[in-house]
Amino acid sequence: MPPSPIRKLVPYAETAKKKGIKVYHLNIGQPDIETPPAIMDAVRNADIKVLEYSHSAGNESYRRKLTQYYKKVGIDVNYDQIIITTGGSEAIQFGFFTCFNPGDEVIVPEPFYANYNGFACAAGVKVVPITSSIETGFALPPIEDFEKVITPKTKGIIICSPNNPTGYLYSKAEMESLKTICLKHDLYLFSDEAYREFCYDGEYVSAMHLEGMENHVVLMDTISKRYSACGARLGALVTKNKMVYDAAMKFAQARLSPPGLAQIMGEAAIDLPESYFEAPKAEYQKRRDTLVKRLNAMPGVFCPNPGGAFYAMAKLPIDDCDKFCQWLLESFSYNNQTVMLAPASGFYGTPGLGKNEVRLAYVLNTTDLNAAMDVLEEALKVYGK
Amino acid sequence: MPPSPIRKLVPYAETAKKKGIKVYHLNIGQPDIETPPAIMDAVRNADIKVLEYSHSAGNESYRRKLTQYYKKVGIDVNYDQIIITTGGSEAIQFGFFTCFNPGDEVIVPEPFYANYNGFACAAGVKVVPITSSIETGFALPPIEDFEKVITPKTKGIIICSPNNPTGYLYSKAEMESLKTICLKHDLYLFSDEAYREFCYDGEYVSAMHLEGMENHVVLMDTISKRYSACGARLGALVTKNKMVYDAAMKFAQARLSPPGLAQIMGEAAIDLPESYFEAPKAEYQKRRDTLVKRLNAMPGVFCPNPGGAFYAMAKLPIDDCDKFCQWLLESFSYNNQTVMLAPASGFYGTPGLGKNEVRLAYVLNTTDLNAAMDVLEEALKVYGK
Repeated sequence: MPPSPIRKLVPYAETAKKKGIKVYHLNIGQPDIETPPAIMDAVRNADIKVLEYSHSAGNESYRRKLTQYYKKVGIDVNYDQIIITTGGSEAIQFGFFTCFNPGDEVIVPEPFYANYNGFACAAGVKVVPITSSIETGFALPPIEDFEKVITPKTKGIIICSPNNPTGYLYSKAEMESLKTICLKHDLYLFSDEAYREFCYDGEYVSAMHLEGMENHVVLMDTISKRYSACGARLGALVTKNKMVYDAAMKFAQARLSPPGLAQIMGEAAIDLPESYFEAPKAEYQKRRDTLVKRLNAMPGVFCPNPGGAFYAMAKLPIDDCDKFCQWLLESFSYNNQTVMLAPASGFYGTPGLGKNEVRLAYVLNTTDLNAAMDVLEEALKVYGK
Repeated sequence: MPPSPIRKLVPYAETAKKKGIKVYHLNIGQPDIETPPAIMDAVRNADIKVLEYSHSAGNESYRRKLTQYYKKVGIDVNYDQIIITTGGSEAIQFGFFTCFNPGDEVIVPEPFYANYNGFACAAGVKVVPITSSIETGFALPPIEDFEKVITPKTKGIIICSPNNPTGYLYSKAEMESLKTICLKHDLYLFSDEAYREFCYDGEYVSAMHLEGMENHVVLMDTISKRYSACGARLGALVTKNKMVYDAAMKFAQARLSPPGLAQIMGEAAIDLPESYFEAPKAEYQKRRDTLVKRLNAMPGVFCPNPGGAFYAMAKLPIDDCDKFCQWLLESFSYNNQTVMLAPASGFYGTPGLGKNEVRLAYVLNTTDLNAAMDVLEEALKVYGK
């Protein structure tokens, strides 16, 4: 079981703070956007005498309402095709345990969300990365790259669009080519759509939009980013494949039920006005524009414009991002401030890749983002000199 | 992955209810005791702008307060020996994934909590049952029975005291003999202590009380039953074995954090007055006394007096508990009422055992319990005739 690559720098950040240095956290996807007060109020106002186990698949009332939300984003599912999970994390876990046997292989375009490794490891599954490139903005690798690594043990492909860590938004054409390869080789398509609300350029395409893929798609979802409610730990596994659903339900039953109070939040969220997403989306887009512009203005830095989510990957004039990120916390400050970034090496499965890249989560307001970019700009001027 | 044996009768109960029959639920451990209003209020009054991820091990403030609770029950641990989990279920899961490799074996006295099977299956671990008997009230099987099944692959023993499903409370002497065998064969002792607050006869002995077992004990805990807050999904894995702790933390980090609102409840619960447990404990004890007396007064029924938890196992004059429990829901009613019991067969690992036993959870008030016993008494008069 691998350690979390994002969290390994935490002790250095803590030491920096103890020295009185302000640390701008661009390292984790913890949004600063307010959790909608209406959904917090739903918990406050709930009349609960006994906080009981819910149905193992989640409260039926919540699952039924959730189908309304999915309908709005073009996903037509029934409530009995949804299992409410403890965060998106548990949806990933149930998906892996359900669809794979130990020794099976799953293909994932790298860089990818590092925790897929942890869940794959627990399920005894081998993660087979195929490399996407910062030069193309991390577009889907060509189909031939998938074909090259498919073996009789390959059982699925994991995608995340808009992507964590790259922010890349797969096009309709890219989604269609994923469909082609999944149908040709009878592979599951695990689709992590945690960031679907945050698409700035181009159209969001869900794996659930792909016709003829009903038995192949396992959607892994969460309210964490959608409603800025990461701490609620509420997600969903959605699939039209009844065998997968029934098998996942056994895992759901073994752990009894998903969190009860969070389900009240999730259910209340469906009643938020359509306009709710406008403000956070506009805010993230403004931050993206600020961040990408600032990064590309720095000598030797390249940051492709991410189409969605709230992450950007940047190539820096450095040769070891782990050392650089540690140095930022341990040895550097500018006006008594520094910045915490996520070394990209942790997002690659192929050893040695991503050594000159970092991930930046734009979860700070533009004033703080600009201050963080001032720090980074100064840091790059002196690093290694 | 096995299906949940307790939940398989649910459709029959639903059909009975649709026919207008009142069903007394003695089948699951969902207490009817009120969740302490003070801990619900703590959530209502919490000032939360952004419901953020907590530390992967749980909020440090909660873990620090939890050490005070543990001190009161004679368990001396530091906050950094506690990982807050999503229910006791996740503590079991982390424990198994951390301490076992696929193919390893774990010994558990049967009958046992059926979901151990599910988590063992996910971790690729073989559950090796040794049989305890209703005739001895489900006392710990003799040490020789453990010795007989220990192989080089045996890595641990799971116990639950007070026990689900039997209600049996292990004595100090029994706990000491478990210590002897764990030390002799270098086995982990996984101790599920979900019901520690509810001991009616004899003294509660935690695995954490056993001296010299610091590196062997993995405590799996939950607030579900303690504060009647099953739906919160809040538990803890506690261990003084640093290697186990560090490895479990990797699983904790992969799933990011335990539920945030539940942690507020858990932390507030530490401030409940010492006297809080008196009323629920007295209530459960009254129910136990009622239930056991009623059962033993029925012809051909034997129910040993359980020392703790809120379960009793009864031997009935039947030959197939699964059929009998289904029949109660499908074909029987008395004054338009019936009763839902848990077939004991699902709690045994050895095929064929427990066929004439059922588990009864005394989670109803004594009036309803008596009504349920009236139903059962009448049912046994006519069953099979």
